[in-house]
Amino acid sequence: MKIDRRSPQPLYAQLKTLLVERIQRQEYQPGQRIPSELALCDELSLSRPTVRQAIAELVSEGILVIIKGKGTYVADEPERIEIKNLSANQFALLTLRNLDALPALHVERLSGDVELNRLFTAGEAIVQTDYWSVSWQQEQEGQVYAYCRSLVPVYMFPELGPDLQEGRRMLDITANKYAYLPQRTVGRLFVRQARPEESLILDLSRNAPVLVLSSRLTARSGNICEISTAVLRADLVSLGLDSGRS
Amino acid sequence: MKIDRRSPQPLYAQLKTLLVERIQRQEYQPGQRIPSELALCDELSLSRPTVRQAIAELVSEGILVIIKGKGTYVADEPERIEIKNLSANQFALLTLRNLDALPALHVERLSGDVELNRLFTAGEAIVQTDYWSVSWQQEQEGQVYAYCRSLVPVYMFPELGPDLQEGRRMLDITANKYAYLPQRTVGRLFVRQARPEESLILDLSRNAPVLVLSSRLTARSGNICEISTAVLRADLVSLGLDSGRS
Repeated sequence: MKIDRRSPQPLYAQLKTLLVERIQRQEYQPGQRIPSELALCDELSLSRPTVRQAIAELVSEGILVIIKGKGTYVADEPERIEIKNLSANQFALLTLRNLDALPALHVERLSGDVELNRLFTAGEAIVQTDYWSVSWQQEQEGQVYAYCRSLVPVYMFPELGPDLQEGRRMLDITANKYAYLPQRTVGRLFVRQARPEESLILDLSRNAPVLVLSSRLTARSGNICEISTAVLRADLVSLGLDSGRS
Repeated sequence: MKIDRRSPQPLYAQLKTLLVERIQRQEYQPGQRIPSELALCDELSLSRPTVRQAIAELVSEGILVIIKGKGTYVADEPERIEIKNLSANQFALLTLRNLDALPALHVERLSGDVELNRLFTAGEAIVQTDYWSVSWQQEQEGQVYAYCRSLVPVYMFPELGPDLQEGRRMLDITANKYAYLPQRTVGRLFVRQARPEESLILDLSRNAPVLVLSSRLTARSGNICEISTAVLRADLVSLGLDSGRS
């Protein structure tokens, strides 16, 4: 988009389109100051009233914000909690380093019914076992952004429940458990509506979108050692991905 | 949750809670058949009318679905398009293998204004160049699920625009461009509301949530060779993540 002096469209309207394009292309980023009126006049050879009118309309549309004594800014997107280097086991219990940071850890022992056993054995001979069901929240600066649930077979980690409740470190809990340590994780990330319990815990309106990371961890023994589901506030979180040589 | 015969709560209501729990834990997965009435009677030592009432109420609540002559199923979540092994440059132009599969490729040459140049140089000496702006849709079985936009500096790939329009393969376009090939990508994945243009292209209602993967590709030369933004239908897509040894 360029300013076209021979166009029937008024110059201020053309400038509006041009500014919105720059915002969409992220040349002007959310929360960032845009060039001053004078700088825009200079750059595009426009008169001051033209620039002023375009900016005034974008402000009234909520696309720009004027901060007194500072300048004109692109309206902020909500500040996001950055999860760096997202991995499939980002929110898995057995790979968590820092359990101290988890408030409201909740542990329950589930009797292993047929369906639960089937879930963990995926077609192979079914192991009869109970499961530890562990749920917790992750927060940053007092803001709960994730509600995580994990299932771990009791036969692999018989003392997991009491160990967690006594505040033992995961490093100690998993010591000497070589065969049952996670070796490979397959995760699936998708967006769905929050379920009632999740809206409550994450302080979301009902049916708000949440990001779900659902993961299956396979141990060195070849058996599944954990199934975890993390429900993330879609309005608060951004996930970092890095690739080396592509 | 177990069936408790001494509880004041009626048995059918306890069974409802138990079935919903199994669905939430994904023991019964969306689209999957749940055990027959008879099997549930057997497993939980309940009478047929009790099981029938619990199932009837869950059907009327839309949680279960009866398919005539087949059985009772967990209501389906929408079928999703699986993106396997998500990487930060999944939707980047310069790393795309199969350009033929892209309908409606749109190429434009943008004059490199100050802001655009700054975006590509991130604080270093600013290169004066134009940019190829390329947009396209990705679809599967006739269903558009992604709207992608890329910016590539013209000085790195002077013939990119005409090459793409003539249908040349990316492998040929990037041949002998060793210094400008992407070496590292930093991506950021987040959910936001669809913008008007995006809703139109992706056939979404206004303000529906979309998944955005915004990536910056750095070439061997150390300069940014592409900035790409992919907007994905959050209701249609699921992203696969794999981790090896964790």
